[in-house]
Amino acid sequence: MADRGGPAAAGVRELVAAARRGQPRAVARLISLVENAAPQLRAVMAELAPHTGGARVIGLTGSPGVGKSTCTSALVGAYRRAGLRVGVLAVDPSSPFSGGALLGDRVRMSEHALDPGVYVRSMATRGHLGGLAWAVPQAVRVLDAAGCEVVLVETVGVGQSEVDIAAQADSTVVLLAPGMGDGVQAAKAGILEVGDLFVVNKADRDGAGTTVREVRYMLGLGAPRAPGDWRPPVVRTVAARGEGVDELVAALDKHHGWLTEHDELTARRTRRAAREVETIALTALRARLAAPAGDHRLAGLADRVRRGQLDPYAAADTLVEELTAG
Amino acid sequence: MADRGGPAAAGVRELVAAARRGQPRAVARLISLVENAAPQLRAVMAELAPHTGGARVIGLTGSPGVGKSTCTSALVGAYRRAGLRVGVLAVDPSSPFSGGALLGDRVRMSEHALDPGVYVRSMATRGHLGGLAWAVPQAVRVLDAAGCEVVLVETVGVGQSEVDIAAQADSTVVLLAPGMGDGVQAAKAGILEVGDLFVVNKADRDGAGTTVREVRYMLGLGAPRAPGDWRPPVVRTVAARGEGVDELVAALDKHHGWLTEHDELTARRTRRAAREVETIALTALRARLAAPAGDHRLAGLADRVRRGQLDPYAAADTLVEELTAG
Repeated sequence: MADRGGPAAAGVRELVAAARRGQPRAVARLISLVENAAPQLRAVMAELAPHTGGARVIGLTGSPGVGKSTCTSALVGAYRRAGLRVGVLAVDPSSPFSGGALLGDRVRMSEHALDPGVYVRSMATRGHLGGLAWAVPQAVRVLDAAGCEVVLVETVGVGQSEVDIAAQADSTVVLLAPGMGDGVQAAKAGILEVGDLFVVNKADRDGAGTTVREVRYMLGLGAPRAPGDWRPPVVRTVAARGEGVDELVAALDKHHGWLTEHDELTARRTRRAAREVETIALTALRARLAAPAGDHRLAGLADRVRRGQLDPYAAADTLVEELTAG
Repeated sequence: MADRGGPAAAGVRELVAAARRGQPRAVARLISLVENAAPQLRAVMAELAPHTGGARVIGLTGSPGVGKSTCTSALVGAYRRAGLRVGVLAVDPSSPFSGGALLGDRVRMSEHALDPGVYVRSMATRGHLGGLAWAVPQAVRVLDAAGCEVVLVETVGVGQSEVDIAAQADSTVVLLAPGMGDGVQAAKAGILEVGDLFVVNKADRDGAGTTVREVRYMLGLGAPRAPGDWRPPVVRTVAARGEGVDELVAALDKHHGWLTEHDELTARRTRRAAREVETIALTALRARLAAPAGDHRLAGLADRVRRGQLDPYAAADTLVEELTAG
């Protein structure tokens, strides 16, 4: 991979400046630094910090096959027509056979490939460190500081980590499609509760009405709402033909307005920052465990746990004690 | 939930003894303690530790719809016919609408419902603490200590956390089915690399041969193997009719033999224990962050990060310093 490695620490400032001028190659290099957990990230993030906070972050999630990429692409088009700069992070679980996401940046979003106002990136995590929870917020930071006014984060809505990522947005869109096992499948996947907005995509197909009703019914089963609370709307789209996309954009704007009015935007962003800081801190602590001394100690404890001579809590106590004693 | 809460610490020994005598209600209560992250777990795990290590742990994973539950059920039948006690953990992402897994214990595995030699449990995690990575190994411990000779851990093969869980087994089975997007979908989901054995289920359907060839091809793309290395077999099954299940059991036995012969079983189990200890330790550290003092500190740092006054690494440094200073 050409992007692997990265600049000397001295070059960080220059790279960040280039990214802020909107140079796609500089943005790409910064995100590669995130993917590779490069040591320069610390300096990069210090440079970026004052320039963040301008982007609206929108999460999109849903089961495989509901049309997430198509819907993301349609949203990109809508925001571009409104004159906004748009960043897209498509989170794909990686495969060691491809060394990255199989459906790469070139396949996705090809219609926006030549638009300099759009930055699209497929992210793969290689299971190192904190994984998605560690990498994605930092990649969002890069796009935010690079001047993207909207950042779309698309993740597959099956899996604890993946759903969590989409939920760490200002607004989270949950996509469904008729005949995909419908709402019950979404409930099983635990994604209903993270949705600020629901989209029933492929709404020209049989069963779309049933899916809409199921989602409304399940949303109604949740806790009773107070007046002024946000009521998640259910929007019908046929994203492949652009139908319903304006309605989705309008619903997103309405949600953004609600967030701002109720001070919820600040609260959400503070919570997101807290999660980000916490994940970096825990990853640093885990790295201490993995350092030669810690690793040797852990292996010794694990061996005793395997033999049944020690229970895992007692072993963890020992580990935490040693970690926090220094 | 009747199981919520739990016994006084004094009753732990008795509860563990009852579980070891194979009382299903005692096993159920212990696993509920795990799900609820009850404070008694520490005492429970200390009691259980000397009685663990007897179970063969088999992970099963695959995309939704490949027939994981059917295949798991068929394996349960095969192991029961061999006279073994079997435990099953089916990991379902939870929904707050159901307060647990939607497809509960009664729906799954109904054919084994009255067999006292089988313990089936659907596990839901509510996103607290370390989630699946924290809860599942402890639930496996309960089943192991309760005398299950085989423990099957079934997880949906989409999602970083879920795939990780299935990979923390002695033997990991990756299930595919024809026409499910085939092998490419599995590669995308990052599950090919965790498989010790591959099953193409629903092998009576069109395209089964293509799926088998695709998997073999992709496995061939991996690193070249040394002589004596394990070569993952690809087994065809029609689990719903029991076809190919004996072959799968034979392949699992062969893998178990290979693990034992190459000292790989001990190595894997030590690694699994290390992950378990590490997760408990990190969860304990995270709990310190979430305790009132830590939480207040983190909120203050997060607010400065949100405003762009502080970068997340500098904030994490402060947090780690305070955490390890005490």
